[in-house]
Amino acid sequence: MFLTDSVRKLIRLALAEDIGRGDCTTDLIVAADAQANGQIWIKQAARVAGTPLVEAVFHTLDPALQVTVHVPDGDDAAERVIVCEVAGNARALLYGERTALNFLGRLSGIATLTREAVERVRGTGVKILDTRKTTPGWRSLEKYAVRMGGGHNHRFGLDDMILLKDNHIALAGGVSEALALAHRSNALSLKTEVEVDTLEQLELALEAGADVILLDNMDTGRLRQAVQQTRGRARLEASGNMTLARIREVAETGVDYISMGALTHSAVSVDVGMDIELTADRRGMRE
Amino acid sequence: MFLTDSVRKLIRLALAEDIGRGDCTTDLIVAADAQANGQIWIKQAARVAGTPLVEAVFHTLDPALQVTVHVPDGDDAAERVIVCEVAGNARALLYGERTALNFLGRLSGIATLTREAVERVRGTGVKILDTRKTTPGWRSLEKYAVRMGGGHNHRFGLDDMILLKDNHIALAGGVSEALALAHRSNALSLKTEVEVDTLEQLELALEAGADVILLDNMDTGRLRQAVQQTRGRARLEASGNMTLARIREVAETGVDYISMGALTHSAVSVDVGMDIELTADRRGMRE
Amino acid sequence: MFLTDSVRKLIRLALAEDIGRGDCTTDLIVAADAQANGQIWIKQAARVAGTPLVEAVFHTLDPALQVTVHVPDGDDAAERVIVCEVAGNARALLYGERTALNFLGRLSGIATLTREAVERVRGTGVKILDTRKTTPGWRSLEKYAVRMGGGHNHRFGLDDMILLKDNHIALAGGVSEALALAHRSNALSLKTEVEVDTLEQLELALEAGADVILLDNMDTGRLRQAVQQTRGRARLEASGNMTLARIREVAETGVDYISMGALTHSAVSVDVGMDIELTADRRGMRE
Amino acid sequence: MFLTDSVRKLIRLALAEDIGRGDCTTDLIVAADAQANGQIWIKQAARVAGTPLVEAVFHTLDPALQVTVHVPDGDDAAERVIVCEVAGNARALLYGERTALNFLGRLSGIATLTREAVERVRGTGVKILDTRKTTPGWRSLEKYAVRMGGGHNHRFGLDDMILLKDNHIALAGGVSEALALAHRSNALSLKTEVEVDTLEQLELALEAGADVILLDNMDTGRLRQAVQQTRGRARLEASGNMTLARIREVAETGVDYISMGALTHSAVSVDVGMDIELTADRRGMRE
Amino acid sequence: MFLTDSVRKLIRLALAEDIGRGDCTTDLIVAADAQANGQIWIKQAARVAGTPLVEAVFHTLDPALQVTVHVPDGDDAAERVIVCEVAGNARALLYGERTALNFLGRLSGIATLTREAVERVRGTGVKILDTRKTTPGWRSLEKYAVRMGGGHNHRFGLDDMILLKDNHIALAGGVSEALALAHRSNALSLKTEVEVDTLEQLELALEAGADVILLDNMDTGRLRQAVQQTRGRARLEASGNMTLARIREVAETGVDYISMGALTHSAVSVDVGMDIELTADRRGMRE
Amino acid sequence: MFLTDSVRKLIRLALAEDIGRGDCTTDLIVAADAQANGQIWIKQAARVAGTPLVEAVFHTLDPALQVTVHVPDGDDAAERVIVCEVAGNARALLYGERTALNFLGRLSGIATLTREAVERVRGTGVKILDTRKTTPGWRSLEKYAVRMGGGHNHRFGLDDMILLKDNHIALAGGVSEALALAHRSNALSLKTEVEVDTLEQLELALEAGADVILLDNMDTGRLRQAVQQTRGRARLEASGNMTLARIREVAETGVDYISMGALTHSAVSVDVGMDIELTADRRGMRE
Repeated sequence: MFLTDSVRKLIRLALAEDIGRGDCTTDLIVAADAQANGQIWIKQAARVAGTPLVEAVFHTLDPALQVTVHVPDGDDAAERVIVCEVAGNARALLYGERTALNFLGRLSGIATLTREAVERVRGTGVKILDTRKTTPGWRSLEKYAVRMGGGHNHRFGLDDMILLKDNHIALAGGVSEALALAHRSNALSLKTEVEVDTLEQLELALEAGADVILLDNMDTGRLRQAVQQTRGRARLEASGNMTLARIREVAETGVDYISMGALTHSAVSVDVGMDIELTADRRGMRE
Repeated sequence: MFLTDSVRKLIRLALAEDIGRGDCTTDLIVAADAQANGQIWIKQAARVAGTPLVEAVFHTLDPALQVTVHVPDGDDAAERVIVCEVAGNARALLYGERTALNFLGRLSGIATLTREAVERVRGTGVKILDTRKTTPGWRSLEKYAVRMGGGHNHRFGLDDMILLKDNHIALAGGVSEALALAHRSNALSLKTEVEVDTLEQLELALEAGADVILLDNMDTGRLRQAVQQTRGRARLEASGNMTLARIREVAETGVDYISMGALTHSAVSVDVGMDIELTADRRGMRE
Repeated sequence: MFLTDSVRKLIRLALAEDIGRGDCTTDLIVAADAQANGQIWIKQAARVAGTPLVEAVFHTLDPALQVTVHVPDGDDAAERVIVCEVAGNARALLYGERTALNFLGRLSGIATLTREAVERVRGTGVKILDTRKTTPGWRSLEKYAVRMGGGHNHRFGLDDMILLKDNHIALAGGVSEALALAHRSNALSLKTEVEVDTLEQLELALEAGADVILLDNMDTGRLRQAVQQTRGRARLEASGNMTLARIREVAETGVDYISMGALTHSAVSVDVGMDIELTADRRGMRE
Repeated sequence: MFLTDSVRKLIRLALAEDIGRGDCTTDLIVAADAQANGQIWIKQAARVAGTPLVEAVFHTLDPALQVTVHVPDGDDAAERVIVCEVAGNARALLYGERTALNFLGRLSGIATLTREAVERVRGTGVKILDTRKTTPGWRSLEKYAVRMGGGHNHRFGLDDMILLKDNHIALAGGVSEALALAHRSNALSLKTEVEVDTLEQLELALEAGADVILLDNMDTGRLRQAVQQTRGRARLEASGNMTLARIREVAETGVDYISMGALTHSAVSVDVGMDIELTADRRGMRE
Repeated sequence: MFLTDSVRKLIRLALAEDIGRGDCTTDLIVAADAQANGQIWIKQAARVAGTPLVEAVFHTLDPALQVTVHVPDGDDAAERVIVCEVAGNARALLYGERTALNFLGRLSGIATLTREAVERVRGTGVKILDTRKTTPGWRSLEKYAVRMGGGHNHRFGLDDMILLKDNHIALAGGVSEALALAHRSNALSLKTEVEVDTLEQLELALEAGADVILLDNMDTGRLRQAVQQTRGRARLEASGNMTLARIREVAETGVDYISMGALTHSAVSVDVGMDIELTADRRGMRE
Repeated sequence: MFLTDSVRKLIRLALAEDIGRGDCTTDLIVAADAQANGQIWIKQAARVAGTPLVEAVFHTLDPALQVTVHVPDGDDAAERVIVCEVAGNARALLYGERTALNFLGRLSGIATLTREAVERVRGTGVKILDTRKTTPGWRSLEKYAVRMGGGHNHRFGLDDMILLKDNHIALAGGVSEALALAHRSNALSLKTEVEVDTLEQLELALEAGADVILLDNMDTGRLRQAVQQTRGRARLEASGNMTLARIREVAETGVDYISMGALTHSAVSVDVGMDIELTADRRGMRE
């Protein structure tokens, strides 16, 4: 996993907000040169995501810390399994503990929920997609966690795909007109997707040519009709209130993709903890 | 609400990750000088939090946008109520839409969950506290949302309170020893809290003097004993797996505070949407 | 034109490198509150690009400066035409002069060279593309200037399109193998392009399915054969040493795109100047 | 070569704009732990400049990469010579390739053009100077490349020398008045230069005392007269449309310096390439 | 000593302002690969503070430099004692010399003045406190230096303690009203202090309950009365024009704390110097 | 006074360190929309410097605050004079108060000490210079304050003048050798100064040609001899332990400059205060 400058900035923001002017408790109790081992374990069975963040958090604090990953991202961990270990300066371990756990817990939560959704549609060939309903500042991390859960990514932002939504279509005067404007686009690299609410709009989209068509808030019967009408002329994405309970049925209509905002906006953190044990037990005074 | 530099950085990170190299769809469909009105509405009854972020997101993109808040933070909004409106350059509205909604949805989710917890303990005098199990980069925002939900804040970071936890006590050689080290602390401004697992430790903590004592993972009967034993000599915080289902019972034991990590690590976003309507309907070409 | 955070950072770097600790000459000669008008004119006929940068440079120094654009980006200006005017604090005008001119000169140089290339292929339907051979830190600006010159953009970076080049193909074990790996890609939004050196590779690419095929360093006859062989099954991009002298001939082979690194790596600046006249003539002392 | 914070920022901007959210092609084809060697070679004979930037680009991505420079900055390289080699993680090599080459190509282009200018005046004792007509954000790098080409630097910015130009002189009321104001300057460290258009102004400048006098847009005869009139009382800089074709003649008039904006605003990049070969050939999947 | 991001930013600002575009003298005289040893010594007896900054300054310039501390922070050094040594690249030593010395000199100045104040009240049990009258940008460093001198820290900023001052009390309508508002505060972690000018206000403060009471500008007799009146119901801080000459007398009144703005706003730098000796004596040319 | 990016960064660092997560006291007592007037006054007669910083601090917090300066920088203020006033949002006034006062107090302290030194040498024609012994991060501000006190600036950093000091001379093999290397320097804009300890070195420096010669730690008789020996061939700077008590005598030797590190490293802050009065008196609750 490549850590972009944006991710590095988020890590620094996170450490700064937790450590502030310094960890006043640890500095009173732990000597500046004490050494320790820390074990990060998972309190409930989960799909793991976020160990590179754990590593980056600790290395930002102290490049000399040694981080060993036992359960790599994308693997499943049973309850109480040790996911990774950190060894080195005891104060650095305590300074970074909460931030590292918060990253790991949230990303594993998303991966675990995604895994569940992917399981539900197994065998249908449908791909589970995320959306842009992510935590501000966390887009690339949460989309990474979706991949670790077995899901696939929809576009990353407003810049890497033309996606004509309701507002754009209304402004352009219709599906055909919006697609005509889109086809005049400059960039070689951009695919085009258009959102449709009805089978009539779907037909217009197919005629005007779109790489992907988003079927918005259609019931299962309508989705089945859309698949038949399309006959492979474009890829189809079902979207709108896609719950775990419903996605199997949707997947069986023959759509190519199901996108679920819930993967990111409704995931809860997996509970993770860290046990720290001094290698050299020494009390210390502040500074 | 005062926007610190850290919050401003998070907003810039969030806009950059969504907009990237530019909104290729909007620039094809909407003229550079088109004007629009946008209404942000809430799809489910909720406690509102995050409107200053909505404002800041849009003003970061274009200081000339006019943002009007109809439901201020800390108020409740019924389903389908318009929370705020934004008027001005149409492209700027579309560039900021998703980021603004993501901030508002997540913070309102936390405020709404907190409100629910506060409701459950109403009349007991107990204060509902958050923890440091927050989304990295979002600490101050999420603690603000807790306040908007009627909750209270525990410490903000490692620097504004001495909190002696399990590891510290073990390292120091016991509760009394840890508190003795803490009392040698330099700063006038720091309160001291200590975590205890047993009533014996509680007694040691009371004798050594602590401003607050955290009762970790005790059952309701034990919590009641702790309150009786303390006789007002320190403030008591009940902590550990505090669910909505259980907190009323805990509150009635007479503890002063109940801290709930779930307020932030298990809140899900409130569903919010934005309807945009051009004041001057014009199609535009990129640039 | 939307100014991303990256462009704003480049502007601040540019102003800092020129102004350093302050303009010691101007502060000796011009009073702190003197007012002036400045006219930016072009010394040679050119396609204009960069006026939003001129505006941003001056507004970064002093938001009260008034910038009026007479020749908008994408228009042609004859020799000695005034492109824009700036009015306000005289010192601010002198502080920003060189930086503003350097932005305008370079971007107009690229737009002018692109216009020339586009002229050469007029009527063939071929689109002139840029490459990633841009000035580090200037990618989005230079690609914008290419659009202002009538050219089209190839991919913006390594992240918005799969482009399998020589090295990738060798590593994957061949064109078909590389495309097979690419088709397993996660993201819905990414198009796929592959580079081929021979007509045999072209056939493999067509069979494996690619959105665009880059024909690398083929002579005109070979390009004509490639077009015939493709029969519209993919878009074709001719690349490699595409000079102004040669592109007409290449365009007539029937390829869809011609990409030219020279648009950015070999453009020279258009010569632009600024005449400044005090509204209120007053000498001043430093501070 | 000392890398200032400003240069480091430019490198990070450059890597961010090229890599964006990640290199989607490489991550599909190359295993995360694959090792490779890369050879950077020059496609045309040139004066080399920019190898410390190549090193910094790769070390920013991965401090463990090993960079070996075969042709140091300031040396000449024949066509097809290998300038430097990079060994280490294969993905990191591919991520940094284009950015590194773009730095090296542009800086070597400036050094090569400067070398040509310096050659033309060889034996006359004249120094070739750059100007402030540099690429915004690149000032210190481009001035460094000029030195690598054998040229000398004029002032670096508005703060390290008093240079009274046309506008300043008009505002001050004449050459003598402008120099009088300048001589009241506070800083011990600043030299003074003044721009003159005529031999009458030259005389005034010589009388008022200036360290350097810029002779603006004078023809060769007039420059010769200026040299005679000056009799060593100040250093003389010839400026204005100094082309390669003309500078020998100008140099022989006896001026001390010739400044050429073209060294930076009209240099084109030297063509450089990178060949990458896996040490351990392994295909990989994204993450 | 933990270096927060804020301190790292200050170090980078400091190096940038001193080095600017590069050390033109050193680059002319010292070869790029010359090696040297530097000894930092103190020209007058002092309490040392700031060696971690010396280390950070040199490591920011060149992580390979070796810094050895002979007199750790918080220890006393006699005149002409060597405080620390730096070995490695000669240019890096010369680039960082002045910045490192300026940090060490100022922080040792504060520690030395604090030590003097602490000496004066030795045996009384009174703690010497700093204030927020610190050098902007230096708050955490100067408060650290106070601790190194044996002093204690008052609050670090506006956020880690409620301190009701004159203005707040006037606005709230009195001491009791202000404290009542403060007690409604949300945060578990915040202590409360209130400023009083008279013994009547003191009584109100004691009744309303405050952790600490600041006795502002009282003479010694009045301070003694305040101590008697308080009878241990709160901690007492004497403040206002506390000079070295007066603090013994104040300490003997029985107050708990004496706060002195002078520790930071009137400390002068300790004179420190650096002797540099080449390990390998070589002259060098720029670059 | 032009605020560079570096100064703006220092202001943001300063506000962040004081305000931290928010002003918990003010938010409890003052309503979010309360309006106030603040008067900043000086508690002791002083030369004023720093009012643009006061303005910048408040405008960083709230651009709508109105700042009126009554005593501009460089003027003298008698005891208890109001230097400037600030009007607008009451919370913003209280948030910025301490930071603004700390800037104003320190810079006025330096200006006042400089004024004293300048007074002492009045009539001799000698210029009082500062040094690089400034507070890290404050270089440009402190040098500005020296100018406001009537002093002059020595070089600003390592990059804007060649200054050959002891170490450089030793490394080069002597004064003549060091100057010979310096004369090979590339930059047109750089003056050369050399440090000498003896009259023999002075003669070598005069022969080799230097713009300025620093006479280090010479007694008054020796300085007088140096002036005679120089006979106007270079400017002379007396340096080393220049105290207020001694500088008149030194000035009368005929040197051109006296440089005093004490202007910045031993200045103490001027005592300044701020009185705040609500325009609309309202109590407020946090948020």
